[in-house]
Parts: sequence; C-alpha cells; structure tokens
Amino acid sequence: MARFFKNREATIGQVPGELVFIGEQKVHETTIRVIDYDHETLTEQELKDVEDSIPYKEKDTVTWVNINGLHDLELIRQAGKGFGLHALAMEDIVNTGQRPKMEDYGEHLFFSLKMMSYDEAEGEIKSEQLSMILGKTFLITFQERPGDVFEPVRERIRRQKGRIRKVGIDYLAYALLDTIVDNYVSIIERLGEQIEDIEEEILTNPTDEVLAKINDYKREMSYLRKSIRPTREFLLQLSRIDSDLIQDETVPFLKDLLDLASQVVDIIDTYREMLSDHLNIYNTGVNNKLNEIMKVLTIFSAIFIPLTFIAGVYGTNFDVLPEIHFEYSYFIMWGVFIIVTITMLKFFRRRNWI
Amino acid sequence: MARFFKNREATIGQVPGELVFIGEQKVHETTIRVIDYDHETLTEQELKDVEDSIPYKEKDTVTWVNINGLHDLELIRQAGKGFGLHALAMEDIVNTGQRPKMEDYGEHLFFSLKMMSYDEAEGEIKSEQLSMILGKTFLITFQERPGDVFEPVRERIRRQKGRIRKVGIDYLAYALLDTIVDNYVSIIERLGEQIEDIEEEILTNPTDEVLAKINDYKREMSYLRKSIRPTREFLLQLSRIDSDLIQDETVPFLKDLLDLASQVVDIIDTYREMLSDHLNIYNTGVNNKLNEIMKVLTIFSAIFIPLTFIAGVYGTNFDVLPEIHFEYSYFIMWGVFIIVTITMLKFFRRRNWI
Amino acid sequence: MARFFKNREATIGQVPGELVFIGEQKVHETTIRVIDYDHETLTEQELKDVEDSIPYKEKDTVTWVNINGLHDLELIRQAGKGFGLHALAMEDIVNTGQRPKMEDYGEHLFFSLKMMSYDEAEGEIKSEQLSMILGKTFLITFQERPGDVFEPVRERIRRQKGRIRKVGIDYLAYALLDTIVDNYVSIIERLGEQIEDIEEEILTNPTDEVLAKINDYKREMSYLRKSIRPTREFLLQLSRIDSDLIQDETVPFLKDLLDLASQVVDIIDTYREMLSDHLNIYNTGVNNKLNEIMKVLTIFSAIFIPLTFIAGVYGTNFDVLPEIHFEYSYFIMWGVFIIVTITMLKFFRRRNWI
Amino acid sequence: MARFFKNREATIGQVPGELVFIGEQKVHETTIRVIDYDHETLTEQELKDVEDSIPYKEKDTVTWVNINGLHDLELIRQAGKGFGLHALAMEDIVNTGQRPKMEDYGEHLFFSLKMMSYDEAEGEIKSEQLSMILGKTFLITFQERPGDVFEPVRERIRRQKGRIRKVGIDYLAYALLDTIVDNYVSIIERLGEQIEDIEEEILTNPTDEVLAKINDYKREMSYLRKSIRPTREFLLQLSRIDSDLIQDETVPFLKDLLDLASQVVDIIDTYREMLSDHLNIYNTGVNNKLNEIMKVLTIFSAIFIPLTFIAGVYGTNFDVLPEIHFEYSYFIMWGVFIIVTITMLKFFRRRNWI
Amino acid sequence: MARFFKNREATIGQVPGELVFIGEQKVHETTIRVIDYDHETLTEQELKDVEDSIPYKEKDTVTWVNINGLHDLELIRQAGKGFGLHALAMEDIVNTGQRPKMEDYGEHLFFSLKMMSYDEAEGEIKSEQLSMILGKTFLITFQERPGDVFEPVRERIRRQKGRIRKVGIDYLAYALLDTIVDNYVSIIERLGEQIEDIEEEILTNPTDEVLAKINDYKREMSYLRKSIRPTREFLLQLSRIDSDLIQDETVPFLKDLLDLASQVVDIIDTYREMLSDHLNIYNTGVNNKLNEIMKVLTIFSAIFIPLTFIAGVYGTNFDVLPEIHFEYSYFIMWGVFIIVTITMLKFFRRRNWI
Repeated sequence: MARFFKNREATIGQVPGELVFIGEQKVHETTIRVIDYDHETLTEQELKDVEDSIPYKEKDTVTWVNINGLHDLELIRQAGKGFGLHALAMEDIVNTGQRPKMEDYGEHLFFSLKMMSYDEAEGEIKSEQLSMILGKTFLITFQERPGDVFEPVRERIRRQKGRIRKVGIDYLAYALLDTIVDNYVSIIERLGEQIEDIEEEILTNPTDEVLAKINDYKREMSYLRKSIRPTREFLLQLSRIDSDLIQDETVPFLKDLLDLASQVVDIIDTYREMLSDHLNIYNTGVNNKLNEIMKVLTIFSAIFIPLTFIAGVYGTNFDVLPEIHFEYSYFIMWGVFIIVTITMLKFFRRRNWI
Repeated sequence: MARFFKNREATIGQVPGELVFIGEQKVHETTIRVIDYDHETLTEQELKDVEDSIPYKEKDTVTWVNINGLHDLELIRQAGKGFGLHALAMEDIVNTGQRPKMEDYGEHLFFSLKMMSYDEAEGEIKSEQLSMILGKTFLITFQERPGDVFEPVRERIRRQKGRIRKVGIDYLAYALLDTIVDNYVSIIERLGEQIEDIEEEILTNPTDEVLAKINDYKREMSYLRKSIRPTREFLLQLSRIDSDLIQDETVPFLKDLLDLASQVVDIIDTYREMLSDHLNIYNTGVNNKLNEIMKVLTIFSAIFIPLTFIAGVYGTNFDVLPEIHFEYSYFIMWGVFIIVTITMLKFFRRRNWI
Repeated sequence: MARFFKNREATIGQVPGELVFIGEQKVHETTIRVIDYDHETLTEQELKDVEDSIPYKEKDTVTWVNINGLHDLELIRQAGKGFGLHALAMEDIVNTGQRPKMEDYGEHLFFSLKMMSYDEAEGEIKSEQLSMILGKTFLITFQERPGDVFEPVRERIRRQKGRIRKVGIDYLAYALLDTIVDNYVSIIERLGEQIEDIEEEILTNPTDEVLAKINDYKREMSYLRKSIRPTREFLLQLSRIDSDLIQDETVPFLKDLLDLASQVVDIIDTYREMLSDHLNIYNTGVNNKLNEIMKVLTIFSAIFIPLTFIAGVYGTNFDVLPEIHFEYSYFIMWGVFIIVTITMLKFFRRRNWI
Repeated sequence: MARFFKNREATIGQVPGELVFIGEQKVHETTIRVIDYDHETLTEQELKDVEDSIPYKEKDTVTWVNINGLHDLELIRQAGKGFGLHALAMEDIVNTGQRPKMEDYGEHLFFSLKMMSYDEAEGEIKSEQLSMILGKTFLITFQERPGDVFEPVRERIRRQKGRIRKVGIDYLAYALLDTIVDNYVSIIERLGEQIEDIEEEILTNPTDEVLAKINDYKREMSYLRKSIRPTREFLLQLSRIDSDLIQDETVPFLKDLLDLASQVVDIIDTYREMLSDHLNIYNTGVNNKLNEIMKVLTIFSAIFIPLTFIAGVYGTNFDVLPEIHFEYSYFIMWGVFIIVTITMLKFFRRRNWI
Repeated sequence: MARFFKNREATIGQVPGELVFIGEQKVHETTIRVIDYDHETLTEQELKDVEDSIPYKEKDTVTWVNINGLHDLELIRQAGKGFGLHALAMEDIVNTGQRPKMEDYGEHLFFSLKMMSYDEAEGEIKSEQLSMILGKTFLITFQERPGDVFEPVRERIRRQKGRIRKVGIDYLAYALLDTIVDNYVSIIERLGEQIEDIEEEILTNPTDEVLAKINDYKREMSYLRKSIRPTREFLLQLSRIDSDLIQDETVPFLKDLLDLASQVVDIIDTYREMLSDHLNIYNTGVNNKLNEIMKVLTIFSAIFIPLTFIAGVYGTNFDVLPEIHFEYSYFIMWGVFIIVTITMLKFFRRRNWI
C-alpha cells in the first residue's frame, strides 16, 4: 500500500501549507552540502547550520545547496524562510508521497520527482523523493537520504568537464534532472532483461512461481509508469515555460531530455503489453497442460476399459458359455487384446495425440 | 441502483428550476450554524431561523453558514431568496443525485461534490452530497446530515491556526474542499490495503468468496471514480477561473488541490487495473486447480486400470488357461503389478506431475 | 438490424435534399396541434390543415406546432415551405434513421433526437425520432406518433406553472429537450435495476438464460449509448452556440441539461462495464462448475478404482493363491477397503475438495 | 494480403511523382465519357481520345469526364497535362492502394476514396478506387472499371431532377460522394443482418464454421473501417475547407454527408463490438459443452463404478465368504444396486446436473 | 532487450552533449561519399578525410555527404565542427538508441530515424539508425554501415531522372525519407503475408510452434510500431514546419509521404489486431481439442462401464444366482450388450458428439 500512496491520514484537517513530514525517516541526521561556483572559482563545503547557506543567495555565483534528510522540519523552515520559498513548496518538500510535478512560483521554480533504484534482492523498485528549488542564483535539492547519484555531476563541476561551469544555474538543474532520467532508463533495462528472460519458461513450465513473477513485474511497471508519466508531463511544461529562470540555450537540452522521458514511457508501455502477452501465454500453457493430462487419461482408459470388459465377459459363471471350452480361446482372447490395442493406438496417432 | 442514480422519476415533466428534494431524508430537523469572523473578531452561533443569517450577507466579514438537512424546501427557498441564489443552483442543492460540478453564476460560484465515508461493516462506501455557494462575503454549505468532518477547519478558525483568519473567504472554501479531497485519500488508502491483502488469498485458495470480494472492490472503485473524476474536472476549471471571487493568492492552493485530486484519480485507476489483474489470477487459479484435480484422477486411473485388467484376465474361466496352473503365477502377477506401478510413477514424475 | 440502421437502400442515387420517408409508418393519420401563447394569452387547437398554422409565424407570440406522423410527405413539404425550412432539414425530418444532431440554418435551428421507451414485455427499448425546428417565433416538433410525453409541458403552459409563460420560445425548446433527457434517465434506471438484480443469479446458477440476458442488456446499452452520446454532443454545441435564437438567460438551463446528459452517458458506461464484469463472473462460474463436476468424478474414481482392483485380484483363478484359503481373508479385505477409503477421504479433505 | 496493402514494392526507389500503375488491371480498354451541361444545355458523349475532352476545360458549363481503367498511363498523363493536374495527384490516381484522402492543390481539389461492393458468393467486400479531380469548370473521375453506380446521378442530370442542373460543379461532386457513402450504408446493412443472424447459432451450436464466420466478419469490418474512417476525416476537412471551388450553398450538404459518414463509422464500431461479444459467447458455448460432456461422464462413472466394485467383491474366490451362501444374497445385491443408483441420481438432481 | 533499448548505462552521469557512441560497431572503417550537383554539373567522389567535404558547404550546389559508420567519434566531431552542427545533434547521431525525431536548430534541421530490413532467416527485423542534417546547401547522412538502399536515388541523380536535379536540397531529403518509408511498406507486406498464412494452421492444428510464431509476429509488430509512429509524428511536424530550409513546392511531397506513413501505422495496427484475433482463435482451438479428447473418453467410458458392470454381476459366486443356469443366458447377455451399446451411440449421436 505504502508504495502507491504515502499515509496522508495525519494531514486530514491540517492547515494547508503547514509542514508535516509524510513518509518514513531514512537518515538520523540531516546533512547540508554547498557547492558554489562560477567560471573561475569553486567552493565546496559541508554546513552544520542551514543558516550559513543563506548568504550565498545574494551572490551572483551558482550555488547548489543539497540537503539530505527531510524529518527536521525546523531546518526546512529555516531554509524556506532564508531563501524565500513558497509555503506550498515547503509543504510538498516534506510530503514524500508527492506526485511528480513542477510549479512556477515566479521567484523560483519547484520540481518534485522520484529517484529510483532497483533492489535486486527483493525484486522491488525503491524510490526516494527529490525536490528541487531553482532560483535566480541558487539551486536547492532535498533528498530523503544521502546518495551518490549526483556524484558524477559534482565531478563534472570540480573538473570543469563539459559546459557545466561555463553556463548558468538552469543548466545545473538540467544536468541533475538528466541524471535522474538516465537512472530510470537503467532500471527499465534491468527489469526488461528479466521480463524477456522468463518468456521461455512460461511456455515450457507454467508454474505458480512464474505467474507470481509476471504479476510482480506488472506491478513494478505500473509503479514506474505512475512515477515517470507525470515526470514527462512536467518536462514538457518545462521545455515550453516562459520564465526568466530558464535561458534559451538550455531549452534544446530540456527538449532532448523530454524526448528521452517520452521514450522511457513508450518502453514501459511496450513491456506492460509484453507482460500481458506473457499472461496470455501462461494461460495457454496451463490449458495445453490440461490437454496433455486428459490425453494420457483418455488413452489409458480407451485402451484398457474395452479389454477389461472382454476379460469380464469370460469371467462370468454361466453354465452355458461355449467359448470357454474351446482349446485356443484364451490365446484368441490375447489376440483380440492385441488387435484392439493396436487399433486404438492407430486411432490416437491419426488424431495426432501420440 | 440507488448508488449510481438517484431516483429522478419524480421530476419528469417538472418545471426545471423548481425545487424537488431527490434522495432519502437523513435527518429529522434541519440545523443551521453560522460562523462569522475577520482577522480580529469571531462569532459562532446556532440559528433557529435561516432568515437570521441573511443580515450577515451585507457585512464585510467572512460568513460561513452551514445547513444540515435538505428536505425542508421552504428553508432552502428562504436561504436562496435571502442570499440571491440562482434558481438552478437551488434545484441542484436539493437533488442529491447531482454529478459533481462547478457553476459560475457571476454573483456567486456554485460547487456540488460528494463527501464519502467507508462503512467497514457493509464494505460499502457511503456518500453524501455537499453543495457550496461562494459569494463575495458569505459561504453557504449544504450537507445532507450533520457530520464533524469540517470540525478541524472550525478549530483552525477558532484558534487562529495558520493563515485562515488572515485571508479571504475563497481560502475558506479551499480549506473545506481540501478537507473533502483529503478524505477521499484516506478511503482509498483503506480500500487499497484490503485490495493488496487479498492478492495472496487469490492464488492459493480461489474460492467464490474471494471472487465476490474482487467484484465488490471493483464496484466500489467504479463508484469512487464516477464521483472523483468530475471533482477533478471542476478543480481544474476552478484553478483557471477568471472570477472576482477567487483571489490570486488562493490559486496556488487550488492548483495544489488539483494535483492531489489528479493523484487520487491515478491511484483509483491503478487499483482498478490491479483488480483486473486479480481477476485474471483468480481464473488462472481456478484452472490450475482443475489441472490438479485431473492429475489425481489420471494418476489413479492410469495405474489401477491396467492392473485391474490383468487381474481380470486371470479371473476368466477358460478351460485352457496355462498360467493359472503354474505354482508361482500369483506371485509373478504381484511382481508385474509392482513393476507397472513403478513404471507409471516414473512416467508421471518425468512429466513433473508428482 | 433495423434498430441499428434504418433501411436507406431506397435512397441510393436519390436526389439529396429530396423527401423520402425512411422508417415504418406508425400512425394512420397525421395530426397537427398548435399552442400559441404569450405572458397573457393562450390558444390551443387541433388543425386539419398545416396551412392554417403558417399565419402564426408572423405573430410575436410563442407558437408551438406539434405534428404527429411523418409519412404524409405533402404535408411536410407544405409546412417546410410555409415556415421557410431548409431542404436538408426537411429531408432529415422524414428520415427516421437519423443520428441525433443539431444544425444551425441561420433562420432556424434544427434538432433531431430520439424519444425512447422501454418495452418491458419484449425487454427492448423502442425509439422514435423527434425533430424540432426552432425559429424566431415558432417551434415545430415532428413526432412519429402521438404520445403524451410532452403533456406535462403543456400542462405547465396551461397553468402558467414556473417561468415557462414568462420567457421566450428558446425556453420552451429547452423544456421539451429536458423532458426527453429525463426520460432517458428513467429508462436507464429501470434497466440498471435489472442489471444489478441478475448479479447474484450469475454466480450461483450460470445458465444459458442468464448469459442470454447479459447479452441482451449489453445490446440495449449499446443502443442507448449510440443514441445518447450524439445528443450530449449537440447539447454541448447548443450551450455554446452564438445565435440570436438562444437568449443568454436560457444558457444556464442548457448547461444544466448538458450536465444531466453527461451523467447519463457516464452511467451507461458504468453499466456497460458492469455487464462486462458480469460476463467474466459468468465464465468463472462455468469454470467453477466444471471443477465441481471433476471433483465428484475424481473422488468416486479414486476411491473405487483401487477397491475394485483389490477385489479383482482375489477373483483370479490361480491354483496357488494362498490368501483365499485363510479363514479371515474376506474380512481382512473389507478392513483394507475401509482403510483405503478413509485414507482417500482424508487426502481429499486435506486438499479442501470435500 | 493484397486487401490491406497493394504491392508497392515496384515503387521503391522510384522517382516520387512518377506514374506507376499499382493494382491489378480490371478492364482491357479505357473508356472515356463526357457529360457537359448547364441549366439549359446537355451534351453526353463517349470519347476515343482524352485530348478531345480538354477543350471543355475552358467552357463555363459543368463538365464531367469519367475515365474507366487506370492502366493506360499515357492516357492519364495526357489528361493530367491537358487539365493541369499536379504530379502527385496523378501518381495517386494510378496507385490503387491509396488511403482515402483529400488534397487541395489550389487550382483543383483531389479526392481519393473507395467504392465498395459486397461479393455475396465469396463473402468478401470488393473495393475499387475512385479518384476525383474537382476544378473550376470540370470534374474528372477515375474508376478502375466501368460500373453503373453513378447511373442514377446521370439520370438526374438528364431528367433535370432536383437541383443538380441548377447549381454548380461542386454540387455534382457532392452528389457523387453521396452516392458512394450511401453505398457503404447498404453494404453494412447487408453484413449487419448476417452478423445478427449468427447470434442464435453461436450459443446453440458452437461449431468451427461459426467461429470461422465470426472471424470473417471481423476481418470485413476491419477492412471497411480502414477505408471509411479516412473518408470521414476528409469529409470533415472538406466541410470546413476555405476554397473558391466549394460554394457556401453546398456546405450544408457536405455537413449532412459528414453526419452520414460518422454514423457509418459508429455502426461499424457497434458491429465490431458485437462480434467481440459473439466470440465471447462462442467460447462460453464451448465451455458449456465441455461441462455437458463431463457431466455425462461423471454421472455414468459415479453410478457404475461403485456397482462394479460390489459385483467384484462377490466375484472373489475366498474359501470363507459367508454372504454368497445365503439364499437371497443375489437379490439383496440387486436391491443394493437399485438403492445406490437412486441415491446417486438424487445427488445429481440436487446439484442440478440432470 | 537490446532491441527495445540500447544500452545507455554508459552515459549515466556523462556530460550531456558529449559524444558517446551507443550501439554496436557494424563496420571497421568509416567511409565518406560526397555527391555534389546542380541542374548542370555533377561530381561524385569517395573522401578519405571528412575535412575535404567542408568546402562544399559554401558552394551553392546541392551537396550530399554520406558517412557510413559511427564509431569514429573524432571524424564525427570534425564534421560537426566543419558544418556547424549543434552539440545535441551530434550526440544524437552517435547514440543509435535514439527515438525517431526531428529537431529544428535554425541553421539546420536534424532528423533521426530507423532503416529496417527483415532478416528472413532469424524471422526478425533488423534496424539501423539513419541521421540526417539538412542545411541550406548541404545534406549529411549518417548510417551505421554501408547499404545500397539509397542507390536508386543516386541513380536518379546521375541519370537526371524526374525532377531531382531541377529542384532544391529539401527535395533530396524528401527523396531519401521516401525511400525509407517505402522500405517499411515492403517489410510489413512480407510480414503480413506470413501472418495471414498462419491463420488456417491455427484453427486446424494449434501446436506450441504456432503459438510461438504468433508471439514472434506480435513482438515484431510492436517493434515496428515503436519505430514508425514517431516517424509519422515528425513527418507531420515537418509538413507544417515554418523554416527557410523547406520550400513551398516540397510541402505537397512531404504531405504525401505523411499519408503513406499514416497508412503504414494503420496497417500495423490492423495486423496487431489480427494477431490478437489469432491468439483468441488459438485458445478456442485448444479448448475445442480438449472437448474432442473428453468426448472420446466419455463415449468409451459410458459404453463400456455399464457392460463391464453387467459382466461383473454374472461373475459373482453366489450359490443362488438363477440366471446363470438358464441355457440362453450368455447369449441374452450379449443381446443386452448390443442393445446398451446401440442406445448409447444413439444418445451421443442425438447430442451431435459423433
């Protein structure tokens, strides 16, 4: 249940816009990391206090504040106040059951989306909410727990790889979004391989476990689709947005990302269809197996029932039963048995049963 | 039947715009409660006579009139006249079979939607119609029966919690709509848990009761969807409305609510899909069970029918039947029995039947 | 066939715009009734000759000409000429296989829709085509046969009930449309009750008759949908029309009617879905029954086949068959019989078959 | 195959716009017929040479050139040159695998659509491509073979029936399109009757032939839909076109035709749905038949297997077997047989199996 | 897996816009071929170095640079720099897992689509990515490996066939796109024939191989659809584009191509539907076969079980068993056997089982 809907019951009747943490706490302590750079300079530090990050707001450099852990509402509140975030954005940040979306609050853009990973052991996709606030000079990201998924982006910043240090903060936001969508692709690839692998198994050996697997994959695909489709929607919105915060040069990159997200959704649908086909084949396999079983039964019955009948006839105790006195009767009976059996076998072979 | 369509037969040929109560009367007496407040003052009182609430219309303060019970058409008519409601709005208020909708009558906005609760005992969702009239200085809510679902909002007003006392009447309307949509979420959560719970049962023990349950959940989900989808539609309309009655500051809150409603509809669809999958698994389970049954039958038949045949042969009364006179024949027969049985068992094991 | 498509073959190669009556003649004589009223006066009369109604065209009062029977093409042609109808409108009036639609011919609006009734005896929905011409000062309705479905509207006119006498001719058109859509609701209610009623029957006793019923209801629902969906479409068009013939005050009423029509279509879809579910349950019921049958067969076979085998062994005529000479053998055999039977019964109980 | 896709392989790598005849040649010789008329005059003649028709282009009268047979590319090329047709229009004329479409080439409009006929003997719909070029003063129609489907229109022209001689060339185009769509209706009527007829057969006697029929009808309906849906689309385009070639007076006629085409598509969908329902019923019929078979088997087995067992017991050769020496044993055994049989029959009747 | 998603894992965290070759290398060496022509002149040469092609950029003639092989990133980078390509276009060129798309980079248009071929031996569609850059005076095509699919276009250029030498570079782009879409048609034709061919097999002999084939075809059709639908989308975009690079005279050709692509998608959907129908028939075939098997079993059992019972009765050893002493008993028994058998056969014939 929890996967499709975070428990919101706690919020019924709550003041809308008030901060309530929804979800399970995934870290003990909240960590704050600031990277501040422009074309020439680069500062990177771990902060104890979120207040220390606020002065960066006024600087013209690109400032990326990454906050891991959402349960410390006081900290979120301070950050919100310091950077001038909208009350609803702040509420959405701490509600980890949020549907992926984008909101334009004029002064800043708010994104909420899912970071996913595939837990091979449990065969389940784990997801974590990522919120981003994109302002004029700062980008704040809120994660549920520390993870190194953004490490390659940090590396690119540190090593001045590609264009990242030369262009604006919107490009940084794009780079992070790109990393996340790339991650979806890799999860779907992994799942897809498994889905294609069970195909053979289904037809040859339609056991309950295979059925359970098909259903598990179906659920995972539903789950992925539920998270990724709204992501595609907001990327579409974003690529068409009319906002000072997104520069014209970044738009082709966002469109490219949108294309990738569209492709991801297409492929999820292809796999969902494939799983439906698998289910059909499974059922056909079950029916075929029933046919096999019934053929065995029918062949045995159809051969031995007539034979048993014949033997039964000569087991009767009638005073007058001429055949039993004839010397070769018993052997003739065996002849009849053999003829009947051969006839039946031919009959079944003609029908392609054996 | 009543759940999908309130009996409207009474209204055929009626004057459109005329008040006819459609639905079942759920309270004996209509109760009227007025809360009137601004940033500083707060009045709360139970009224005997709806006429007493009309003077509030002219005051600049926020006035919330809550009317419980819809059968007293005279009272509704007085309220309508007093607050200047449109004839069609009034007709819709007393027709509890209304589809959720919003109507802009210029002077006021009219909302009609469903308040739901899940009756655990009957496993059925109960719904009640809520109509709202949002005017410049007043908000009138019409409920079928008293219920404390709005109590938390009243508390927030009384305790000045959040922004509710500082902002306008449109925010109050939003707060009430939010409470109702939050309620949908909690119902779906509860249903969803049950739906996920039966999954295991379906595969292991596909009884008629499980089938009946799946169908019950399907019906409940259809019912929810029928009520919530139009709600989402009107929230979309509302978040884009161009009306003096909705202030710009309230729009982000309405959009947020719209997002939640969209999520609710998404999840209902996810559960509907899941129930279809459940039905498929159920059917597969039934087929698997048939296979099991047939395997047992076939194994028994295929083993014992040949054995019985052999015994039958030596029960014949032929004068010449050489084997029966041989001393060890009987024991040899048992040997054959054992060999046949072992052969058959191996045959079945090779086919994975046992 | 006739229900889904009126025989149009007669018209192939015909002059478009030429009058050809398509359908079956339902009355012997065409009757014409004129109601002419304004706020103060009211005239109501049966006319012999359609020509007599034409002078009303020039009067400022509201004139409603109701014509029952469509086979008298000469009469239709006269009316058409007298009131200045478009050739295509006239062709559509006499073609009873028309799809519900609205056409704006500038001088007048043309509506074509279906009046339905449920024939309980045949379990079939009967439909009749109603065409309306709404001009500046006149409304002409063409029915296939006289029916009192509009009687309540006439009563409201006569008794000055509601607003009908105070407002214009477009309101009269609305009132008639409203009556027809209300009628759809009552038919669906009646069908819906029957559909919900068979649910129990399906699971407990899936006979051929139940299957036939499900299919009948499906067909009726398809038929309803085919007629009502285009009606909703033209109501949507009508509520947004930019025409002098529809006054602004009437628009909210039309919107209200549109809401009702949308609800009707929603509910038809809900019932169609429910019927699909019913079909699924039916099939599951059939499968469950097969399982029941096979269980009985398997239980009997699995118990008695081994017993018969044992008896068969001691019916053999071997010279040496030690057990048969032992005094208690027969009783021991019975003991074995009982043990085998109990074992088998336990086996089946463990599998939940009995 | 050919029905869903004409062989285009020949055209791969061809010069686009070059004439290549795709399809099978259906006539030996191409025939050309010109009808030229205005309100007063009428000329009708068979031409040997397409060049002779070109002078008509300059005349103000309505000129309808009908060409039967598409394989003579030289002739098509001459016509194209003479009337100034666009290269692509000419290519589409000779490609009989064209999807129905409309193209506005400024100077003329190009239509391509299918003329269909139902071949009762083969139970298959035959289709032929019709291309039309509508210019200012001329209309050229290209058919694959001569057919009298347009004869009624010619008759109307000759006899001055209806408005055809009084109005422009666009009305002639409409009249021809109308004839074709009317023809679709008659085909669907004929198929529809057959589809409704097999319904009874399906439930009572689900043979392989019935299944084959259902699938044939499905294919024919798919085929119809594939051809008629794009026709509807281009009629929609045509009824909204902004071109000098279509006069305002003709638009209502085109809209009327569009309505008919929409109705045709609706009805095709209804029949497709009905065929899916038929398939479901067929499968249910097959399952019901299996149940019948298994009931017979089970009843026989369940009655006779216990009886045979009992007889088997008293066929054993134990030295001590007290019952066999009792005088009435044999008769008692028969009594037991009868009691068991009656008990079993009651058991089956209680379960509604017999 | 690889067919639905090229391995992108390598790119996670990569610099967007950076060149990374995704796919498998299909040639050893990259080959470059330049064709440069106008109405009068024609140069065709193989280049060693991509730099040599850059001077053509400035010439007014039509220059078509075809590059086979994508793994040599240095070469691609040089080409990109020389012709001024956008970084994202270059990234897409070397990512062979790209979704078909069009991008307007102002100075040039970028197309990415799939060239397909049907590998008869493996029964699988092979696809290769083709990227096109359309500039003012040059067209660059990037293929994964050399193939002569464009040879006919080159021939047309060489022999001045059709209009290709008379018109601009956008027409060349069209000609290449046309060649590719024509190729889709021929693949679908080939697959379609096979799909229609298995129909008969399905009903008469529903083996596992047939089922596997149906599923293979389904997968191929899914694959085709996934590639061709976005192609249609971008052709739609292209036919409506507002760019200097596409001249007005080329638009009708693009529209024509769009029509063909739409037809291709329609037909793919028709075949997908047909395959679903095939699967249904297959399942019905399996069920029918089960019915056949059960009929055989039931007929044998129902005839011989009663007979065996009768024989069993007279095999009992009761002291008093009057019938066995009657002289004709044995023959009477045979008479009874025959009567029972005939009765049963009649019973089965009446039920249409034999």
